[in-house]
Amino acid sequence: DNLEQSYLFSTIARKVREYSEAHPEADIIRLGIGDVTRPLVPAVIDALHAAVEDQAKQETFHGYGDEQGYGFLHEALVGYYKTHGVELATNEIFISDGAKSDLGNILDIFGTDNTVLVPDPVYPTYVDDNVTDGRKIIYGRTSQENGFLGMPDDSVKADIIYICSPNNPTGAAYTREQLKAWVDYAKKNNAVILYDAAYECFITDPALARSIFEVEGARECAIEICSFSKIAGFTGTRCGYTIVPHELEREGMNLNKLWLRRQTTKFNGVPYVVQRAAAAVFTESGMAEIQANLDYYRQNAKVIADALDECGVWYCGGKNSPYIWLRCPGGMKSWEFFDWLLENCGVVGTPGVGFGECGEGYFRLTAFGDAEKTKVAAQRIKAAIQTL
Amino acid sequence: DNLEQSYLFSTIARKVREYSEAHPEADIIRLGIGDVTRPLVPAVIDALHAAVEDQAKQETFHGYGDEQGYGFLHEALVGYYKTHGVELATNEIFISDGAKSDLGNILDIFGTDNTVLVPDPVYPTYVDDNVTDGRKIIYGRTSQENGFLGMPDDSVKADIIYICSPNNPTGAAYTREQLKAWVDYAKKNNAVILYDAAYECFITDPALARSIFEVEGARECAIEICSFSKIAGFTGTRCGYTIVPHELEREGMNLNKLWLRRQTTKFNGVPYVVQRAAAAVFTESGMAEIQANLDYYRQNAKVIADALDECGVWYCGGKNSPYIWLRCPGGMKSWEFFDWLLENCGVVGTPGVGFGECGEGYFRLTAFGDAEKTKVAAQRIKAAIQTL
Repeated sequence: DNLEQSYLFSTIARKVREYSEAHPEADIIRLGIGDVTRPLVPAVIDALHAAVEDQAKQETFHGYGDEQGYGFLHEALVGYYKTHGVELATNEIFISDGAKSDLGNILDIFGTDNTVLVPDPVYPTYVDDNVTDGRKIIYGRTSQENGFLGMPDDSVKADIIYICSPNNPTGAAYTREQLKAWVDYAKKNNAVILYDAAYECFITDPALARSIFEVEGARECAIEICSFSKIAGFTGTRCGYTIVPHELEREGMNLNKLWLRRQTTKFNGVPYVVQRAAAAVFTESGMAEIQANLDYYRQNAKVIADALDECGVWYCGGKNSPYIWLRCPGGMKSWEFFDWLLENCGVVGTPGVGFGECGEGYFRLTAFGDAEKTKVAAQRIKAAIQTL
Repeated sequence: DNLEQSYLFSTIARKVREYSEAHPEADIIRLGIGDVTRPLVPAVIDALHAAVEDQAKQETFHGYGDEQGYGFLHEALVGYYKTHGVELATNEIFISDGAKSDLGNILDIFGTDNTVLVPDPVYPTYVDDNVTDGRKIIYGRTSQENGFLGMPDDSVKADIIYICSPNNPTGAAYTREQLKAWVDYAKKNNAVILYDAAYECFITDPALARSIFEVEGARECAIEICSFSKIAGFTGTRCGYTIVPHELEREGMNLNKLWLRRQTTKFNGVPYVVQRAAAAVFTESGMAEIQANLDYYRQNAKVIADALDECGVWYCGGKNSPYIWLRCPGGMKSWEFFDWLLENCGVVGTPGVGFGECGEGYFRLTAFGDAEKTKVAAQRIKAAIQTL
């Protein structure tokens, strides 16, 4: 019961509600939430319908599957990782109902006496998961100076290191060389990196890593957690996966086997129809169709980034990420800018300070909205900032 | 890493494989596994297809939902419980991906210094979940004398009490009066009952409880965990739910709020399409169609039970349960009977001792198989036992 009872997103919801009640005529545009808005692509829809028909017939009905997922989906993911130059064994991949579940549950295989290093700013779930368990948390401070990409500090000793790249909330993404420094640090400290790759699908710059396993030595020190939520719009369809390499051992225990044991004991697999849908993402038509959706969001990010460029506002992200992390103009603090943006533009975003102390004075906008509305919002933001 | 590395079900699989290799002509009938075999009913299939179409269109697309589930499914469950005379608030119901996940995850809201009381024999997951966390486990011994229905022992002090009724593996089910004794014991000891109601749908005897909340006082001491796996064949579709009453408090903390916090932090909800499918179970056509499937399994149970009656073998379950728990004939031990049954009848079941010491000399058969094969198996069992 040790967590704050007031939340970032519930405070935002309350403020927006109050503003709407006071200004019923206001046309509010929400650029705050990290949920997708494009429907599932035809290849996925077709796979879902076909799988539903399988479940309607005695001969093709699927009951309990393996907790770690179906072979056909493991194979599809092995193929996908091969396109980034990463070789995986099928039994290194554990299918789950989503990255959020895995990020929480993976801690079951770590003692509560471990020290955890999280970046600041940070996706709040990393912290909440560990506060619940009572682990000691160290914050790795980041700032505009290092592009909100923290690098290892040899004076800090941690057992579990969270890395999210491309980052939520900042949109910043590591190069393979930068990740190599983290891998070296983790190996030196006998630490394990929990690598959140949920936004890898937005990467287009070939210098950036799409998987930590592109980095030499990562198989001895990293677990990668990823999701179909962003690549294929599965936020309401629920599928993710966690990769635990065979080489990963700590205190004489094999983490792949420990996670298999955790999942077979406390989880019973992802719906057959959802796994069929996820596998369809990696078909030729699936990959083409999801790229069209990703391009739609990328264009939204560009529209926002271009508007900020035109008023000379500093930001990171926006490329290789659906998030734009901007410095609040006019020296405003995060919540001050939230109110200013709502009142002057009717646009809702997320105050950076809600993700940690280092986010104070910064602000997150997202590219998941409707294209037309995003254009209107970008115009309003540009016009309002230029009056400052 | 404190769990046994060899499992009941993997040993069975090995023995069956070895027997099949030695006797390739053998017609083996499996009455061992608790998975359903009937396909999803038309009302559920129609709801799945319709929900998939919702996900194909911008206007009806569903992204993230509330972690605890959609209102339409809460309302459907409130209505279902009303038919057993139980009144629930919608926010006492938490939708999940299945009872196995909830049975494991619910322990997150209990300290590891709690003492756990589990029946013997027992569904192995209860024990594994707690062994992993390091909780002290007390076994409540049951036997043929008490119909494998343990009653409270005032000399035993426990903080968490597992009750599964109708029971897996024994098929035995508590009356409301018997459950009242457990509720009184829990309240006296400030304990919490974790009530696994996964098989409630098989109950037809009106004296038996379908929910612990039919019992006065249970709202102050019980959590009920249930699933769509058996009522509607969702073993591969994955949906369950947990009921935490508002009144349930321990050490000044409200368990409904703690569980809400756990689920919102470490879980992200059940697929929209699956929740639509689950809600369809409680429509008029859905309820009629699932009863036809349940009757199919009930008839299988009766076929097995009738065969055992004819050879005078003691058993419990078989009525109000898909499980038949029999005393091994001829004084055989559980594994001895396993081998005998495989060799003499080509039938695979589950040795009772695999569920705990008190299961030694007993054996579990299940009603989830094909009706024709179940009849053949019952005939073979009867004929073979009569030669003993």
